[in-house]
Amino acid sequence: MNVDFVSLDDVRAARERIAPHVRVTPVVRWRDDVWLKLEQLQMAGSFKARGACNRLLCADAAQLAHGVVTASGGNHGLGVAYAASRKKVAATVYLPHKAPQSTERRLVEMGARVERHGRDWDDAWAVAEKHAQDSGALLVHPFEDPEVIAGQGTIGLELVEQLGRFDVVVVAIGGGGLIGGIALVLKAIAPSVRVIGVEPTGATAMKDSIAAGRLVALDKVDTIAGTLAPRNVGPHTLALASRFVDEVVLVSDAELRAAMKTLWSELRVLVEPAGAAAVAAVAGGHANVEGKKAAVLVCGANLDTALAAEALG
Amino acid sequence: MNVDFVSLDDVRAARERIAPHVRVTPVVRWRDDVWLKLEQLQMAGSFKARGACNRLLCADAAQLAHGVVTASGGNHGLGVAYAASRKKVAATVYLPHKAPQSTERRLVEMGARVERHGRDWDDAWAVAEKHAQDSGALLVHPFEDPEVIAGQGTIGLELVEQLGRFDVVVVAIGGGGLIGGIALVLKAIAPSVRVIGVEPTGATAMKDSIAAGRLVALDKVDTIAGTLAPRNVGPHTLALASRFVDEVVLVSDAELRAAMKTLWSELRVLVEPAGAAAVAAVAGGHANVEGKKAAVLVCGANLDTALAAEALG
Repeated sequence: MNVDFVSLDDVRAARERIAPHVRVTPVVRWRDDVWLKLEQLQMAGSFKARGACNRLLCADAAQLAHGVVTASGGNHGLGVAYAASRKKVAATVYLPHKAPQSTERRLVEMGARVERHGRDWDDAWAVAEKHAQDSGALLVHPFEDPEVIAGQGTIGLELVEQLGRFDVVVVAIGGGGLIGGIALVLKAIAPSVRVIGVEPTGATAMKDSIAAGRLVALDKVDTIAGTLAPRNVGPHTLALASRFVDEVVLVSDAELRAAMKTLWSELRVLVEPAGAAAVAAVAGGHANVEGKKAAVLVCGANLDTALAAEALG
Repeated sequence: MNVDFVSLDDVRAARERIAPHVRVTPVVRWRDDVWLKLEQLQMAGSFKARGACNRLLCADAAQLAHGVVTASGGNHGLGVAYAASRKKVAATVYLPHKAPQSTERRLVEMGARVERHGRDWDDAWAVAEKHAQDSGALLVHPFEDPEVIAGQGTIGLELVEQLGRFDVVVVAIGGGGLIGGIALVLKAIAPSVRVIGVEPTGATAMKDSIAAGRLVALDKVDTIAGTLAPRNVGPHTLALASRFVDEVVLVSDAELRAAMKTLWSELRVLVEPAGAAAVAAVAGGHANVEGKKAAVLVCGANLDTALAAEALG
């Protein structure tokens, strides 16, 4: 499939553009030669600030005159609200009902207008699209957007600088913008790195779509990792994953919960289920890192207190 | 006062010795040019693993034949239990009654024998001393020990490598081993760095002792930062602080609680009250970092769920 819509140069330009607004997140050794990149330390608690900042910084004043709007399981909304606060434009975020209460409160604190709508992300997105048509606000898609993908790809540039040569990278897949951007970068500048994606067993839109060679929509999703659970990926992210991702492995909710506990117990890192997905894939033996130097992305930590209490248990 | 008992070379030797057993903890930008060193990511959840590993690795087989014993508000006990597990020797840890339940559980999981004794650390220590005399176990003091201090000082070496030139370092003071080791290193290799210590308003043993020019014992301590609350510092740590620490500032329990919330809200870093003390000193304006490049040490994250819930709130 064609991947001409985003390039290594786009990611390099994104990095320059967003540098004043985002953190270079650190890596720390977990076990053996397995290194965690702690992207939950990013502004607004996940990698999403990178893509959202790049998108808004690429827009001109006319595009931003009526504000920005999006729909989000939580993290992308926080990223957009953060980027909007830096650009001093109004943001509206549609949240599915199951998104954490703490995320809604944070969004409001960051000055965003929040509307709850629908069960899953796709329901909320439909309303955000209508809002954009009616209001003229800039609609910011969480993954199906080359500038968002280029922003997330900046993580790939940092990984190579921070770790030097490594053999494997393990990254969670929601809509696929994160792994798409990272994989694009790595296959360009460190092509020997094996790229392993991770989906929940109850939300396999990317794995199914790669297998089918076309976009496959899920009838339903069922996972505690709400931010990894769109019913559809998109043509851009499917193209990137089909071309650059070597393997997609699956983790169960039980493995996600166990990985959250492991991260707290061994590193005092508290994350949301999606943030622990790549660690779960390694701990469960689904992503094989034995004898290899591996980078494992910890991608977000926006979670409600009930899940937090369980992880701290 | 004489500080010949520990040198920069001792710290450099400690670093070589403990390298296979501890993590190089990362730094991340917080605000402006203020950088946090995330030492809560260390093995066993605090900087204490460094000193404990150095102490046990300096001991010979005869000294370790009857195991090791210590008393601890929590973190030093976990550090000693971790070091003992690496050396495959038995560890006994006396905990004051107010130490977190989660710490006791972790100690047991690491194979240590745990005894609860006394209200404060000093009470538990008296029993640990007796245990050592009776059993022949190696007694590992949490701060009044040159090898422990040299282990904690390895953080100073890492800071200089990670940050290059910087102007200020802000470090919490419990017994003073941590700041003593770090200050010793910085005044030797980066003498322009201003070293600011932080004590709780309810546990000012070091500030009072420096002011008096001699060891001052507190009648009582009163702070939520249990791991910063010995009633006495020691001759070694007082000598180091008198010589190398430029200023000691105080933070209230309310400031500690607020800093815990700030760390979660702005960085998704969850720490115990002591772990947030240096951040509290900066946020409260007690440690002046304005216009300066500052290193702020986040030192531990062993906390009970009630405090965690409050920080996440």
